[in-house]
Amino acid sequence: MDFGFDETTEAYRERMLAFMDECVYPAEREFHDQAAAGGWSPPPLLGDLKAEARARGLWNLFLPGERGAGLTNLQYAPLAEIMGRSPDIAPPATNCAAPDTGNMEVLDRFGSERQRADYLGPLLNGEIRSAFAMTEPDVASSDATNIATSIRRDGGDYVINGRKWFVTGAMNPGCAVFVVMGNTDPEAEPHRRQSMVLVPRGVPGLTVRRGMRVFGYDDAGHGGHAEMVFEDVRVPVANLIGEEGGGFAIAQARLGPGRVHHCMRLIGMAERAVEMMCRRALTRTAFGTTIAEQGVVRDWIAESRVRVEQLRLLVLKTAWLMDTVGNRGARTEIQAIKIAVPAGVEWILDKAIQVHGAAGLSQDFPLAAMWAGARSLRFADGPDEVHRRSLARRELRRHLPAQPG
Amino acid sequence: MDFGFDETTEAYRERMLAFMDECVYPAEREFHDQAAAGGWSPPPLLGDLKAEARARGLWNLFLPGERGAGLTNLQYAPLAEIMGRSPDIAPPATNCAAPDTGNMEVLDRFGSERQRADYLGPLLNGEIRSAFAMTEPDVASSDATNIATSIRRDGGDYVINGRKWFVTGAMNPGCAVFVVMGNTDPEAEPHRRQSMVLVPRGVPGLTVRRGMRVFGYDDAGHGGHAEMVFEDVRVPVANLIGEEGGGFAIAQARLGPGRVHHCMRLIGMAERAVEMMCRRALTRTAFGTTIAEQGVVRDWIAESRVRVEQLRLLVLKTAWLMDTVGNRGARTEIQAIKIAVPAGVEWILDKAIQVHGAAGLSQDFPLAAMWAGARSLRFADGPDEVHRRSLARRELRRHLPAQPG
Amino acid sequence: MDFGFDETTEAYRERMLAFMDECVYPAEREFHDQAAAGGWSPPPLLGDLKAEARARGLWNLFLPGERGAGLTNLQYAPLAEIMGRSPDIAPPATNCAAPDTGNMEVLDRFGSERQRADYLGPLLNGEIRSAFAMTEPDVASSDATNIATSIRRDGGDYVINGRKWFVTGAMNPGCAVFVVMGNTDPEAEPHRRQSMVLVPRGVPGLTVRRGMRVFGYDDAGHGGHAEMVFEDVRVPVANLIGEEGGGFAIAQARLGPGRVHHCMRLIGMAERAVEMMCRRALTRTAFGTTIAEQGVVRDWIAESRVRVEQLRLLVLKTAWLMDTVGNRGARTEIQAIKIAVPAGVEWILDKAIQVHGAAGLSQDFPLAAMWAGARSLRFADGPDEVHRRSLARRELRRHLPAQPG
Amino acid sequence: MDFGFDETTEAYRERMLAFMDECVYPAEREFHDQAAAGGWSPPPLLGDLKAEARARGLWNLFLPGERGAGLTNLQYAPLAEIMGRSPDIAPPATNCAAPDTGNMEVLDRFGSERQRADYLGPLLNGEIRSAFAMTEPDVASSDATNIATSIRRDGGDYVINGRKWFVTGAMNPGCAVFVVMGNTDPEAEPHRRQSMVLVPRGVPGLTVRRGMRVFGYDDAGHGGHAEMVFEDVRVPVANLIGEEGGGFAIAQARLGPGRVHHCMRLIGMAERAVEMMCRRALTRTAFGTTIAEQGVVRDWIAESRVRVEQLRLLVLKTAWLMDTVGNRGARTEIQAIKIAVPAGVEWILDKAIQVHGAAGLSQDFPLAAMWAGARSLRFADGPDEVHRRSLARRELRRHLPAQPG
Repeated sequence: MDFGFDETTEAYRERMLAFMDECVYPAEREFHDQAAAGGWSPPPLLGDLKAEARARGLWNLFLPGERGAGLTNLQYAPLAEIMGRSPDIAPPATNCAAPDTGNMEVLDRFGSERQRADYLGPLLNGEIRSAFAMTEPDVASSDATNIATSIRRDGGDYVINGRKWFVTGAMNPGCAVFVVMGNTDPEAEPHRRQSMVLVPRGVPGLTVRRGMRVFGYDDAGHGGHAEMVFEDVRVPVANLIGEEGGGFAIAQARLGPGRVHHCMRLIGMAERAVEMMCRRALTRTAFGTTIAEQGVVRDWIAESRVRVEQLRLLVLKTAWLMDTVGNRGARTEIQAIKIAVPAGVEWILDKAIQVHGAAGLSQDFPLAAMWAGARSLRFADGPDEVHRRSLARRELRRHLPAQPG
Repeated sequence: MDFGFDETTEAYRERMLAFMDECVYPAEREFHDQAAAGGWSPPPLLGDLKAEARARGLWNLFLPGERGAGLTNLQYAPLAEIMGRSPDIAPPATNCAAPDTGNMEVLDRFGSERQRADYLGPLLNGEIRSAFAMTEPDVASSDATNIATSIRRDGGDYVINGRKWFVTGAMNPGCAVFVVMGNTDPEAEPHRRQSMVLVPRGVPGLTVRRGMRVFGYDDAGHGGHAEMVFEDVRVPVANLIGEEGGGFAIAQARLGPGRVHHCMRLIGMAERAVEMMCRRALTRTAFGTTIAEQGVVRDWIAESRVRVEQLRLLVLKTAWLMDTVGNRGARTEIQAIKIAVPAGVEWILDKAIQVHGAAGLSQDFPLAAMWAGARSLRFADGPDEVHRRSLARRELRRHLPAQPG
Repeated sequence: MDFGFDETTEAYRERMLAFMDECVYPAEREFHDQAAAGGWSPPPLLGDLKAEARARGLWNLFLPGERGAGLTNLQYAPLAEIMGRSPDIAPPATNCAAPDTGNMEVLDRFGSERQRADYLGPLLNGEIRSAFAMTEPDVASSDATNIATSIRRDGGDYVINGRKWFVTGAMNPGCAVFVVMGNTDPEAEPHRRQSMVLVPRGVPGLTVRRGMRVFGYDDAGHGGHAEMVFEDVRVPVANLIGEEGGGFAIAQARLGPGRVHHCMRLIGMAERAVEMMCRRALTRTAFGTTIAEQGVVRDWIAESRVRVEQLRLLVLKTAWLMDTVGNRGARTEIQAIKIAVPAGVEWILDKAIQVHGAAGLSQDFPLAAMWAGARSLRFADGPDEVHRRSLARRELRRHLPAQPG
Repeated sequence: MDFGFDETTEAYRERMLAFMDECVYPAEREFHDQAAAGGWSPPPLLGDLKAEARARGLWNLFLPGERGAGLTNLQYAPLAEIMGRSPDIAPPATNCAAPDTGNMEVLDRFGSERQRADYLGPLLNGEIRSAFAMTEPDVASSDATNIATSIRRDGGDYVINGRKWFVTGAMNPGCAVFVVMGNTDPEAEPHRRQSMVLVPRGVPGLTVRRGMRVFGYDDAGHGGHAEMVFEDVRVPVANLIGEEGGGFAIAQARLGPGRVHHCMRLIGMAERAVEMMCRRALTRTAFGTTIAEQGVVRDWIAESRVRVEQLRLLVLKTAWLMDTVGNRGARTEIQAIKIAVPAGVEWILDKAIQVHGAAGLSQDFPLAAMWAGARSLRFADGPDEVHRRSLARRELRRHLPAQPG
């Protein structure tokens, strides 16, 4: 047992921290001004930051294997944490932003040569962006067998009909392709009904209808969250990812690393929140002393530190398990981080906001937007409740009384 | 001891419930579409609703005495709860919306004849709106002695310099007057330094700079939350409300009823959230049963009901105390509702959102916006922590060991 | 609506407060020394206190109607609160201690003339004590249909077989009679299977086996919590209370007032805990200031006050509803207080203990024992979870979509 | 970074698990019966278990260096967890029970040759037991500078006067020696005032007055928690441990390993509680299904698993830091585990109790006693609040604005 980072990780951390200090933090104000100025495209500034990150060798770090940086989950996780400190900028600047990361992993592992040439290449180069269309407004998406969008084979095509929403990034006109999850066989056994197909932007019958808001945020800076309608949308059968009926399995494979990324970014946000909370507390005065002298504020700071340490260790262990025994062996931990991290970080962000007073709610500080991000992750890939129930079921199974032979 | 409403209250409740059913709920969708279509002015629809409410005798219900409807706090409180079920529409439609209510109370009690003629009349008629400029970006406003905006006497004028923000309603061009709290005498004892003056919109030197956001919301529908700059703004000395150095005392007087109104509206929101949570749970299906069958969801529903009942009783008792022994005698309770209600309702709204899935975060349901409203009330009139500390101090004082004579 | 006590209540409160100050608090130390000195009989001191309370007209206050003091639930509730401040002494001293109170109510309402003569009379006179044998070790007693103890008719007798535990008071040799709940007809519909019979102490086949502990407490001072075994125990059929199959209904009737009593006593304990917490905080010094200066301690005190106020109002409203619309109409509230009060008071006691340091855990202060009492009430009459589920079911039913005619 | 145990640890774990299965669990019932039968001496059974553990090489595992088993903190921690599953038996059976462990460490590091010969030898052999007298009834012991017991030099002796309580183990007549913390120089700077001396049982002037209870438990099985009075107690100056004024520093040194041991044992209790909760839930039936089918129970199980994993990782990392950078470098973590682990485990035990119904409160299951142990650790070495404040102070210091040179 050893809690230190290895040399590769330390070297990358150093490089990433320098990039943050020298390029990312100084760009934050202008980035958000550009984003607020409107339009669904990313702030122009982002192009420069991408070039700079790539020049510094901070590019596609999330992708294991030879097409990416080749890092393990355990090596990448601490870098995702650092990126999370500036969650709107650092991930896209390093081409490590969701949902592209998940889509690239899927194409890397399950895509055909043709699909990789058409989409993975441009994605890895940061030339295009992509989205993942899974959630539907009409059914509880936490139960994947509920998915109602139909993908029907018709000659050499698939014909898609249905409605999706909260398709993150899809409002961005530079989002060139959608990975769409739908039902190819309503008669199959529940977890073999779904398939994933690639749908390019601009095909007939596909309408990107509107941006969904999360609390009051449209998240235009990273392409919003679209409602999309598919009316007899046709794509060639070659656009199927993997095999028919394999959609559920691919979605599961996509989950593990995605959770680790999300959770580590949240931990980065939490660390930044603790830092901001301390600085604010040390510099604001009320009733004759700094806020930092107030016992309740100290209590929040202590509790935040104690929680962050625990959450980080849990995610790092999960990454280590994924690397050593695989995603199946890490199943409990992958659920555990989904349960613990968004809720824990939400708590810390709430306290950091409280220390900032009304300013903390506003656009002048990143805390409220980070909070909304953490809150919405309590739904991503199904609400917490589903994961808690499933984890408990597995725990109970370990203690079933032995059955007589 | 009697927990039933009196006849006046019952009659008003019936009338208000009918207004909600017949006029307010049916208008909600169009109201929010109009608000989203932009601009800082209130949705045009509001004019019709105001006329209708007034015709039904549902007008200025908040104001005791002969200039208003003459209800006690205890009689008005249950009506505020009902209004809170549609918090963007019912309060302004009945001319019972903050911050006008507080400003009208102040003018009613402390205003000069002239001030009442110029401002209270038009406010009571719903012809103009007003705002209350108290919070400042540069100091912790929870400590009123921190207020830095200066109001300096110069001949027959006051000259105002300073910066205010989170001035709710001020982005609305129909907001014709601001009640501004500032410092008239830095040498006076701490609670005699502040005064309140009336500043009409459009005076030279006054800039309404920008709308502050609250969790991404600009709240344009009710005039936003402005940042305002005062640079050598001049108003005649006749614009002073009450006496010089009386600002703190007036602000305290304004607080009690305002808290009861806010808290009862929050309870109305909580009731609506419970209703929505139940309906959604009964109609969504996951893993073979409705969500209403899930034990955890039932637990949230039960807990919500138990909390709402307690919170409502606490606010009603506070209103009763204010009516019977006055605001000073109700001081502990006025703080207690500020501590308990926003936090409790926030919890309920969070669970209602969770039951709605991602939809609950979006503009398609009122829950996320209500949540942001509840969350921001944990700051209004100073953060919870300040009130908790003050309440505890009073509790401790009751148990001080007797001093030897 | 009126939150003041009526004159009768005020007069009784005054008398009760005097009794506490003059007789109960001064006796506490000796009472607990006598209890600790052992044996399962009540401390001898209790006899004097009973005589004194009776002489002061503080006797059988819990019992409505002409056999008791004739108070309503709403009038008795505030007296129960005062008694709860010294929970081991004041209730038995005034002949208002569970489980006798519930048993007397049952006999008053459902008992035969003979049963009332034999048992109710001596109980009302404080000559004997009684117990209520319901919970069984082998089944989840929260589901009353689980009850396995059999009561079989055999000629003019009932024959009882089964095992009961947590029979409070039964270790006290002065406990002369047991109300025993058992199954008289396994074939009946689930809520008509149970009956209640009176079983006098000392009948053949009845063994009071041992005292169950609650945490480390044996509660010898009020007769402990016995495990009892019934082996072919015979009682005449005249010992049936009410009718065969009526046990469940009687148990339900017994619940409402019992809950109000328990909950008000808990609120009395909470008030005493707040008082003790304040006094301790004002007199202990650490790191240069009294503990009362610590922000976290103040926060606990404020939160305690805010919670106690809400809990008390909820219980008082429940009592009022029981008096005005009956126990059925107060069903939601009767469940709500069971859910809210023990958990809320447990929290307050925990904080009061924390302020006392290790001393708070010990026999030198009543806090830890009070805590154990509050904790065990989270099980009494079924665990919280059962009540939450049931309350939620009723809430959901109110929001069921209307069925087409 | 590597989350696997090393070979030594794995080998010891295997041996320890076998000892638990073969010797400890089977002895639990008899052990507790013997303890309940009374007297302050340990149950006779313990002697056999000690011989067996020693024969299996499971002896003094806690002690690093050549006098003990030579394990690192990180190697010992998982063994302490296993022992914690039967906290009354496994630690004393393996001679790894507090407070002897801390006392042996102190003598090993700071004791003179003579002190080691007289006391460390017999302690390492399990021939005698010892206690640690620190807490005082009259002052808040969380602030070590409050300690009032005086240790005054008088010729070749120290003369001790004062009162101590919660001296764990001291009621056991086999407890042969006390490590006593007292004040040798009231004029010295605050952290140089305290010294530690060895006081043998039976010296004149030393009275072991009574056993303090913890939630009703006397903990007689491991020697109780004594109140002790020192009246002109004389010991030779050679009984001083280390140097005069060094008491505070020794106490600090003693803390780190002690915390890790306590916390890991708590985690073992938590694991046992989860196991018991699952087993009970799978076998009890209410309302037609097993309790394991209830959503709320599943939620508790999931939450328990998620918490245990985080807590364990935090303690293991703390142990690793102590091994690699020393106790000073691990200061934040040593405080963090004190804050997080007792509170977290208390929560889990509470839920396990709830699943067991009233039985969970009683002597028939170990849960309530474990709960009382966890609860009392929220005071050990100072209440949580003190540690939270201190941790926050350090966190704040990291973010102090740079001072101009």
